[in-house]
Amino acid sequence: MAGNSIGKIFTLTTFGESHGPALGGIIDGCPAGLKINLKTINDDLNRRRPGQSEIVTQRNEADSVEFLSGIFKDKTTGTPIGFIIKNKDQKSKDYKHIMNSYRPSHADFVYDKKYGFRDYRGGGRSSARETVVRVVAGSIAKQLINPVKINAFVSSVGEISMDTDFSKVNFNNTEKSIVRCPDAKVAKKMEELIKKTRKVGDTVGGVVSCIIKNVPIGLGEPVFNKLHSELGKAMLSINAVKGFEFGSGFKGSKMKGSEHNDIFTKDGKTMTNLSGGIQGGISNGMDIYFNVAFKPVSTIMKDQDTINSKGKSVKIKGKGRHDPCVVPRAVPIVEAMSAIVIADFYLLSRLSKI
Amino acid sequence: MAGNSIGKIFTLTTFGESHGPALGGIIDGCPAGLKINLKTINDDLNRRRPGQSEIVTQRNEADSVEFLSGIFKDKTTGTPIGFIIKNKDQKSKDYKHIMNSYRPSHADFVYDKKYGFRDYRGGGRSSARETVVRVVAGSIAKQLINPVKINAFVSSVGEISMDTDFSKVNFNNTEKSIVRCPDAKVAKKMEELIKKTRKVGDTVGGVVSCIIKNVPIGLGEPVFNKLHSELGKAMLSINAVKGFEFGSGFKGSKMKGSEHNDIFTKDGKTMTNLSGGIQGGISNGMDIYFNVAFKPVSTIMKDQDTINSKGKSVKIKGKGRHDPCVVPRAVPIVEAMSAIVIADFYLLSRLSKI
Amino acid sequence: MAGNSIGKIFTLTTFGESHGPALGGIIDGCPAGLKINLKTINDDLNRRRPGQSEIVTQRNEADSVEFLSGIFKDKTTGTPIGFIIKNKDQKSKDYKHIMNSYRPSHADFVYDKKYGFRDYRGGGRSSARETVVRVVAGSIAKQLINPVKINAFVSSVGEISMDTDFSKVNFNNTEKSIVRCPDAKVAKKMEELIKKTRKVGDTVGGVVSCIIKNVPIGLGEPVFNKLHSELGKAMLSINAVKGFEFGSGFKGSKMKGSEHNDIFTKDGKTMTNLSGGIQGGISNGMDIYFNVAFKPVSTIMKDQDTINSKGKSVKIKGKGRHDPCVVPRAVPIVEAMSAIVIADFYLLSRLSKI
Amino acid sequence: MAGNSIGKIFTLTTFGESHGPALGGIIDGCPAGLKINLKTINDDLNRRRPGQSEIVTQRNEADSVEFLSGIFKDKTTGTPIGFIIKNKDQKSKDYKHIMNSYRPSHADFVYDKKYGFRDYRGGGRSSARETVVRVVAGSIAKQLINPVKINAFVSSVGEISMDTDFSKVNFNNTEKSIVRCPDAKVAKKMEELIKKTRKVGDTVGGVVSCIIKNVPIGLGEPVFNKLHSELGKAMLSINAVKGFEFGSGFKGSKMKGSEHNDIFTKDGKTMTNLSGGIQGGISNGMDIYFNVAFKPVSTIMKDQDTINSKGKSVKIKGKGRHDPCVVPRAVPIVEAMSAIVIADFYLLSRLSKI
Repeated sequence: MAGNSIGKIFTLTTFGESHGPALGGIIDGCPAGLKINLKTINDDLNRRRPGQSEIVTQRNEADSVEFLSGIFKDKTTGTPIGFIIKNKDQKSKDYKHIMNSYRPSHADFVYDKKYGFRDYRGGGRSSARETVVRVVAGSIAKQLINPVKINAFVSSVGEISMDTDFSKVNFNNTEKSIVRCPDAKVAKKMEELIKKTRKVGDTVGGVVSCIIKNVPIGLGEPVFNKLHSELGKAMLSINAVKGFEFGSGFKGSKMKGSEHNDIFTKDGKTMTNLSGGIQGGISNGMDIYFNVAFKPVSTIMKDQDTINSKGKSVKIKGKGRHDPCVVPRAVPIVEAMSAIVIADFYLLSRLSKI
Repeated sequence: MAGNSIGKIFTLTTFGESHGPALGGIIDGCPAGLKINLKTINDDLNRRRPGQSEIVTQRNEADSVEFLSGIFKDKTTGTPIGFIIKNKDQKSKDYKHIMNSYRPSHADFVYDKKYGFRDYRGGGRSSARETVVRVVAGSIAKQLINPVKINAFVSSVGEISMDTDFSKVNFNNTEKSIVRCPDAKVAKKMEELIKKTRKVGDTVGGVVSCIIKNVPIGLGEPVFNKLHSELGKAMLSINAVKGFEFGSGFKGSKMKGSEHNDIFTKDGKTMTNLSGGIQGGISNGMDIYFNVAFKPVSTIMKDQDTINSKGKSVKIKGKGRHDPCVVPRAVPIVEAMSAIVIADFYLLSRLSKI
Repeated sequence: MAGNSIGKIFTLTTFGESHGPALGGIIDGCPAGLKINLKTINDDLNRRRPGQSEIVTQRNEADSVEFLSGIFKDKTTGTPIGFIIKNKDQKSKDYKHIMNSYRPSHADFVYDKKYGFRDYRGGGRSSARETVVRVVAGSIAKQLINPVKINAFVSSVGEISMDTDFSKVNFNNTEKSIVRCPDAKVAKKMEELIKKTRKVGDTVGGVVSCIIKNVPIGLGEPVFNKLHSELGKAMLSINAVKGFEFGSGFKGSKMKGSEHNDIFTKDGKTMTNLSGGIQGGISNGMDIYFNVAFKPVSTIMKDQDTINSKGKSVKIKGKGRHDPCVVPRAVPIVEAMSAIVIADFYLLSRLSKI
Repeated sequence: MAGNSIGKIFTLTTFGESHGPALGGIIDGCPAGLKINLKTINDDLNRRRPGQSEIVTQRNEADSVEFLSGIFKDKTTGTPIGFIIKNKDQKSKDYKHIMNSYRPSHADFVYDKKYGFRDYRGGGRSSARETVVRVVAGSIAKQLINPVKINAFVSSVGEISMDTDFSKVNFNNTEKSIVRCPDAKVAKKMEELIKKTRKVGDTVGGVVSCIIKNVPIGLGEPVFNKLHSELGKAMLSINAVKGFEFGSGFKGSKMKGSEHNDIFTKDGKTMTNLSGGIQGGISNGMDIYFNVAFKPVSTIMKDQDTINSKGKSVKIKGKGRHDPCVVPRAVPIVEAMSAIVIADFYLLSRLSKI
């Protein structure tokens, strides 16, 4: 497998399976002298952790990170930051039933075909457990790019959507709802939908939106590494993501140029922001905002028809402890990936001019 | 600037501005022994070229590519393939009026801020002229990954959409319409909309869809380099793109797991294909399909308010020769970027097992 | 800090300081299905470990590696292999005296200048302790490239050199001597020189030679990544290395073409092998051999004049537990780095032809 | 083929064969705003060009570079710098005799084995003609890293060596001798040796030394990308190179620590400089110096026994126009590769601290 690294300067390389002894990562390229606030990192981990509320999986992983290098006297030294998160509440026995069977819309089948065999316990490397490492790295990235502020939130669950204007969202409300939607009324409805869905053993998809403020002008590297191409790649690399749009997004494709163009004001800002804070692949100082579509979790609590590794039809039992809807826990992951991308471009942007 | 390379094994590095002497690229990592069909490359270039029909820009660039290395006796030698496409029909004088002014929703402003100054002639490096190089590389990639078939087409222009089931599209019809929509009736309407839009000096957005058939099982590298993350990045790197979704896409976020899961049949295929041919970031042998949203072209034939490099308000004239709608010419570009991504993963997949 | 990764396909990323809780690494790109022999890895670690004989440092680090991912039922799964080696016998107090002083010919001064401050305990990241991670990865690489055989040995210590013809070295003798020189008589002299040197509190340099057999034809990627350029880089990245030569090496620069050319025989081999198994950057199937020059260890048991971080003259005490000569312990490190380079090119070579 | 790129930030990707229409390259990552002096580039090209004196090959390639992008109004724009050098004085017919035969110690054999066939004209990609591209990029790199001064020169040809202390070399003399040895007396002897060698149809090796002055403190990235590992790799990537040593080099391996340590003086400099300006992989502000060993050119004007592609014994004629000794023309190439490496680390060093 290749592909376990992201970033050109601020690079994160990760490892770990859902049922191995630990997951972890190495951040290489974080500049020296950054004061690290461990509490912030733990807060982000807690926002991602299973068992945090009644609408997420009841597995109980109180993830704690151990830093093994790169930080000395609370500051980064410039050397690689190695860290691990131990797996604790693993119940590998839960997975015997899928040892030879392919769960629908999971990676079981393709892993077997690609690698010849697989670590079947809990999805192994293909489990979203892997994202815990991203949250740690993202939390450090956030500290590096301060005062950039990254705020993700749930903007839809199933058919229920928040339709607040992005420029008017009150981020303080996000963490007040267990579903992480900043509109309290809509949040309530989403919560109910998730509970109802769980009750029938089903799952439901949703959308996480993200707004990034205070981004300096000049981040992003045309041609192939445009700021939004890398943001898109980073989001699409999160488990269960099916789509990414920024600024006007898919709606923009229905518009006319005369409506869509963002007219400059004298201060170098723009009157509208359909560009989503990025022009020609480079940040223009306006807010960056985007939507990330998540499919419904594939593991449902219903029996499903499938095949086993010998191509025979089998039935797979719906069991285990899983999320009925992934978006509440995806919020800190979307933030983390945003921070990693922004941090990388922030460092690269120091090299644009002589 | 970094970011002018794409691919890990089949790598393309590009250069060139819209009004310099030439654009070009280097493909490194194309295996030796591939028979190169030059006609196919020229056909793809002609599908991208300006002036090809009455609904695209009337600039006349009959792009021809010169190969400078890497091909000997019609076969790739394994050494880097260097090539250039000369600029011919440049009218640099057309751009004097934007020398010091920032066109709305163009990259002028951010280039000036990031690099300190810019080649203002025709957008320089930020011009979509740059994509001509991608088409050449993509055309070679297509030949490498044969029998994989990549078919892009226009599925919407403004509010006009084709709603054919993706599994029933007749690709033979795509090139019969100048708008490149395979549904003749819808194509006609799109064409009319584009003509009408041009007449009033405006532009309109649209969506290009793409279906990839015959993809071998096993392409894609979790975690960060999932097949769809790299496809998404590649699409988002094309000028004017605002969104990317694959498989069920944004609609998938509204569905339930029990509806969304693709049930396996005995032959290892799936009954439905909401996954879009990719599971866990790896191709599963089913058709890959995705949508790419393009905003309306920013250059309109109307006067617009803007600022100049000194922050003063100025009016910018609508003039020059531009596309009223970019999607017909974007079709071969979407195909090219798809081919480049698939070729890279195709080669990488040889390394998955001992 | 960048630069903690090596390899394009078989990539190793490492972290860790000499006095942190642990060092470790991530191997990404090792193909699935490789049977891993843990005993071999431990054997290689023991050949590098401190305290293994009376002529190396008396620090006692019985290094044991913990694998955290990527191996399931004794086989690689294709996912990244994460591992750590805990630090045990650290005596950080030993280093208080260098907290503000720059040891001559160490990295203290440059780390302080480059990063603004440093983890002064035992050299931190600049300590050769870091090489323990390379040995683990190299040992896995060796298993991947089997039946390639990599044999390093000590060919000189100070002025004492072995002058056996490289094609006649008996590798079975290497491990019989604590100095790791396969010529028993010369080994004895080297051993005595090292002991004598230690007694007077001094250190001495030496040369490690390496012979690689059974290398398939076709490894190496011209132009910049020639097989010997990457081998050279890998060797020069080992602490204390000052030079690298392969094949005829520096002596070759004194020769005539008519003497130096290796004449082909009918079987595709060559009568002589001044090329050192590599032509045009690509392995030709003959033995690869090279020499690596190590300077004397900078930490000596004598007082030395130096400066502190404020630029004042100070005396630095010679104390701590250090190697009087680094080459005996460098032998497995040279082998490990060779294996990592060969493994990478071995995988890449699968992509040379269609 | 992979491996036609070098550098992490200041990256050069190259293409081209000795007998194709042109060679060229793309520099990506050169910051915007650098004033480019074209005369300097041409001067460097002339120092590398064939036919420049009576002791080099009499092929007549007055190489001139055409820049195709990235430079606007004499300054770099930050976009990739594309350039080509056309091949002119090719006599492809000269190479019919090696179409099916493998020249001893050339890359013919390994290219055929690795790629399945080869462009046999003049060595194709394996020809040192490829280095012309490096000289262009190196010349731009030199301008970027000003006031760093890179001075290479010939320090030995065959058995004739210059033994001047490196700190006393007068670089102004280098270009006064056609052999590029700054010691006039030794240069004369070298020149005679080369002429004598040519007369008998033979070739001879030599050593190029290089001294780099005014290097800022802090360049280089431990662990794997130490400044000297990358310099070593870059030198070893030049055709015909067999060895690299820096600072005390191979001689350093014979020394004692008490002799070898460089004692700091109050100004942060060192009394001696056996470290060669690099400690722990990072520049310490002292002069960097190193030696590069070149083997004798493999093409000799004598008949040689060899095999053809069918494994049959054949005789190969000594003919064509070739260098009797490569080092005089290698001097600007060593400088160019040094500049490319230093430029890359110079840019990276901006990212060491927050």
